Amino acid sequence: METTLLRFGIDIGGTGIKAGVVDHENHILGQAYVPTGAQRAWQQVIPDIAKTAQEALQSAGLCRDAVGSAGVGCPGTIDAKTGTVVYSNNLNWKDVPLAQALRRLLDVPVRISNDANCAALGEVCAGAAKGLQNVFMLTLGTGVGSGIILNGKIFEGGGPGGAEFGHTLLVENGERCTCGRRGCLESYASATALIRQARRAAEAQPDSLLCTLCEGDLSRMNGRIPFQAARQGDPAALQVVQTYTAHLAAGITNAVNIFRPQAVLLSGGISKEGTYLTDPLTERVKQEVFGGAASFLPEIRTAQLGNNAGLLGAANLF
Amino acid sequence: METTLLRFGIDIGGTGIKAGVVDHENHILGQAYVPTGAQRAWQQVIPDIAKTAQEALQSAGLCRDAVGSAGVGCPGTIDAKTGTVVYSNNLNWKDVPLAQALRRLLDVPVRISNDANCAALGEVCAGAAKGLQNVFMLTLGTGVGSGIILNGKIFEGGGPGGAEFGHTLLVENGERCTCGRRGCLESYASATALIRQARRAAEAQPDSLLCTLCEGDLSRMNGRIPFQAARQGDPAALQVVQTYTAHLAAGITNAVNIFRPQAVLLSGGISKEGTYLTDPLTERVKQEVFGGAASFLPEIRTAQLGNNAGLLGAANLF
Repeated sequence: METTLLRFGIDIGGTGIKAGVVDHENHILGQAYVPTGAQRAWQQVIPDIAKTAQEALQSAGLCRDAVGSAGVGCPGTIDAKTGTVVYSNNLNWKDVPLAQALRRLLDVPVRISNDANCAALGEVCAGAAKGLQNVFMLTLGTGVGSGIILNGKIFEGGGPGGAEFGHTLLVENGERCTCGRRGCLESYASATALIRQARRAAEAQPDSLLCTLCEGDLSRMNGRIPFQAARQGDPAALQVVQTYTAHLAAGITNAVNIFRPQAVLLSGGISKEGTYLTDPLTERVKQEVFGGAASFLPEIRTAQLGNNAGLLGAANLF
Repeated sequence: METTLLRFGIDIGGTGIKAGVVDHENHILGQAYVPTGAQRAWQQVIPDIAKTAQEALQSAGLCRDAVGSAGVGCPGTIDAKTGTVVYSNNLNWKDVPLAQALRRLLDVPVRISNDANCAALGEVCAGAAKGLQNVFMLTLGTGVGSGIILNGKIFEGGGPGGAEFGHTLLVENGERCTCGRRGCLESYASATALIRQARRAAEAQPDSLLCTLCEGDLSRMNGRIPFQAARQGDPAALQVVQTYTAHLAAGITNAVNIFRPQAVLLSGGISKEGTYLTDPLTERVKQEVFGGAASFLPEIRTAQLGNNAGLLGAANLF
């Protein structure tokens, strides 16, 4: 019988580092977590990444030679070919030779990719898009991350800084985006954007349920409140949610016209709204897409793996 | 010595069908042309496609068994996997089994792809992007066609109707596009769009050079006049060209943020403006792109192969 080696899957975030030992049925046999301490230099953070992986191994009761590879998901612009983190705002890293440094510490081959890419690959390997080959995923969080799977593999773009679908235009001369441009998808479809719009609506309509649910303190606005108020029929909230949905649908329509995936996945906090979000999105995309309702249309689904998607996808870089 | 078989390259347009016999150095050894007669049923058009290929063979002084394959570029939504033209507005075709029918007549394996895809592949194999692996091309004509080359191959999308970059959003609730949506790149960056904007500007400013160059008859407006007037410093024309360039730059920026190609190619009538068009585009894209001027930036070039790009690319489907 052939022995198949296990894989480390590692998910580096601005707040914490998660590592897991993953088998070839995508079961997580053991995992560990440490805070990132992103204020430190990368030379101090990387040994902690290796340590987290080793703790995951211990928690699974396995020894070192059970694992044959390590995949790492990392926020920011990644050069997957060279294994370099070109730039990561969350980690405050620039040109960090992550794969090389980690390989030295873990003594296994290391591959890296963007965290949103890894999350998409995780859902394809073990989650909401299991068995599909062409999948487009948007993570609706503080920003809008995109993960594009073509023929079962992560699409990295021809060079670093590709597959940044969150930074495609939606509104000419629109809201200022974190990338410096105006009107990007991220500046209309992130949770941050939804909260901004909900605050504006609440300010303009102080009698709305949007205000009530914040208990009058708009600094307490979050991404759930507009949906909660809309579900109760509050006109101001309905308007905010409808506008948000229209922008997100426009972004998804663009993605469908480019990639024609088999499925579009949504993850991140806002995706928890489920069919209240995906049903109207599906209707709008069907109307707007090139070729219309009769064309090859993807199903719009919510992701399933939650916080483990990145780790599982990272393991599947091998 | 191994005998390498030649290839048919066929380019079907709404007006004419062009066929060529192409060798492995991408020389066209012979070619032929017939009008499409697109008002006829496809069952009548396809024999003419085969006939054109055979005429190309004769004009090269070659016999039938010199050719081992046929690649075909066709306008519209193509299912490359099944060899079917799903829908072509220009040809008035729907669900036409082009590859199968042509295979029967030519007695060689047949592959088909969208005409803009073939043009991009042609430029990669033998033209302005020779030797590059990741290239994004826009054809600025009546519409805006896109051809995306990833790892040296045409990117078809996960299903028919993908790679339609001309139908991604630029302006929310903007100009009505031919696809039914509002504000697509095509409705701002096609020659048709430029002419529409130039006419509007000429109407509003009847003293402008835009009007003079049309000899007062705005139905004579074409895609060259606004550039010609702008080069002479006409304020109305400068405004039209600047707005056109800004929209095109926004579309290219989106493509760079998604694909990070090594080169962006422009073809079609408007690309003949050369560096007068590409220099300001390059500047704008550099400013707007994710990661800015320090990121991995493609060169923006004009295509080289003109009307032969589609035929050469089609031959290279094999």
